[in-house]
Amino acid sequence: MGVIDVEAPSALLAVSGADIVLLAVPVSATEATFKAIRHLVGPTTLIMDVGSTKRDVVDAARRVLRENVGSFVPCHPITGKEVSGVEHADADLYVGKQVILTPIERTFTVQLQKAVDVWTALGSHVVKMSPQSHDAAYAAVSHLPHLIAFALINGITSQEHGKEYLSLAGPGFHDFTRIAASDPQMWRDILIANREELLAQSKIFQQTLQNLEQLISSGSGEVLEVLIEHASETRANWRITSKPSPK
Amino acid sequence: MGVIDVEAPSALLAVSGADIVLLAVPVSATEATFKAIRHLVGPTTLIMDVGSTKRDVVDAARRVLRENVGSFVPCHPITGKEVSGVEHADADLYVGKQVILTPIERTFTVQLQKAVDVWTALGSHVVKMSPQSHDAAYAAVSHLPHLIAFALINGITSQEHGKEYLSLAGPGFHDFTRIAASDPQMWRDILIANREELLAQSKIFQQTLQNLEQLISSGSGEVLEVLIEHASETRANWRITSKPSPK
Repeated sequence: MGVIDVEAPSALLAVSGADIVLLAVPVSATEATFKAIRHLVGPTTLIMDVGSTKRDVVDAARRVLRENVGSFVPCHPITGKEVSGVEHADADLYVGKQVILTPIERTFTVQLQKAVDVWTALGSHVVKMSPQSHDAAYAAVSHLPHLIAFALINGITSQEHGKEYLSLAGPGFHDFTRIAASDPQMWRDILIANREELLAQSKIFQQTLQNLEQLISSGSGEVLEVLIEHASETRANWRITSKPSPK
Repeated sequence: MGVIDVEAPSALLAVSGADIVLLAVPVSATEATFKAIRHLVGPTTLIMDVGSTKRDVVDAARRVLRENVGSFVPCHPITGKEVSGVEHADADLYVGKQVILTPIERTFTVQLQKAVDVWTALGSHVVKMSPQSHDAAYAAVSHLPHLIAFALINGITSQEHGKEYLSLAGPGFHDFTRIAASDPQMWRDILIANREELLAQSKIFQQTLQNLEQLISSGSGEVLEVLIEHASETRANWRITSKPSPK
């Protein structure tokens, strides 16, 4: 299996007759990509994507692939970098990482099993769930953190002394804002594609933030400390779900 | 110079006659610590702290040290870990990192120079500014990110499926929330001590976030992408200010 960029002129030739087609395009380009390749895929082809949202991708697959929608297994590998391009390629990117598969009722059993086998062979830990559950979970743990990181940076640069503030920032800021450097087009698509779940999560976040602000404002140190302790312990005990590298 | 924990019973003996006293206590304990040691410090002693807020620490020094306030040089090394305790000690913690000194008009020149020399000898890059400027800057680039990280974690765990969401989170979440594991008592103190600047920064952040939410809600992809691109480029071009390790 090679990774095929269907936006490249030679891509359609490569798709024709391929056993496995892996779409790696911004989620908003998924539908157009399905349209470009649908006449080339047969009933035994396995089509996968790597998009960060799944409901919109599944909807596009239903609309375009129709009777062949069962050949498509929606995938989301939980890994990546804030930088893109072949110069940042990493052969171990998927090793030990979770890959979420979100099959629908019409997904063919054979293709689903082949998808599991492919990711497992790459060293990934496969998890299956519905597209809806996927989008709700990743709104909370990925899409909202990205939105917050973008807002934090822009809020700082909007201020008179913003540049000076940035020059003073340290390692905590470094890690907290790493995801703010992510690809703008890709993230524009994700945030809009999953807007309902994202805005619901952002509301919960802002309510929690404002509750903490009230405690800070009133100097309620005791309750504030309990709530910080809850967050601190939760995070200290959290680990990325992964399986050990086979190496 | 050894690092002295003034909360330890033997600490006062150690402070007595010391050339340099470095306070490493939660900022709310600074005043009590000054009181415990003020009869032991002479006009040539250099007292420093490592607190994350500076106005409150300077106010405490003025109140308690009085005519000896000039012996105190307020310091804030821009480094640290989300874990504490001697088992996480790191001899290179300060190498190449910024250390902010916030002298006041009454700070003695000799002590200030000695403080610069000590941090420089440790490999740090010394920056001087007013306590006010310090607190404004770090509200934006440190205190607010911590508050946000605490709120994000607590917002997720408050939900029915919060545990499941956390189990699905990946490397982006890992880095974004690392600072949420910080020490609760220390951060309770910092957030309350710098509440005015922090709440002002949080307001700017929430306005920026809500502006992005409106663009997402209305599907205004073009403007949204421009704003994400601004954040992404700002972060991609940002580097921690540091000087190369002397090794």
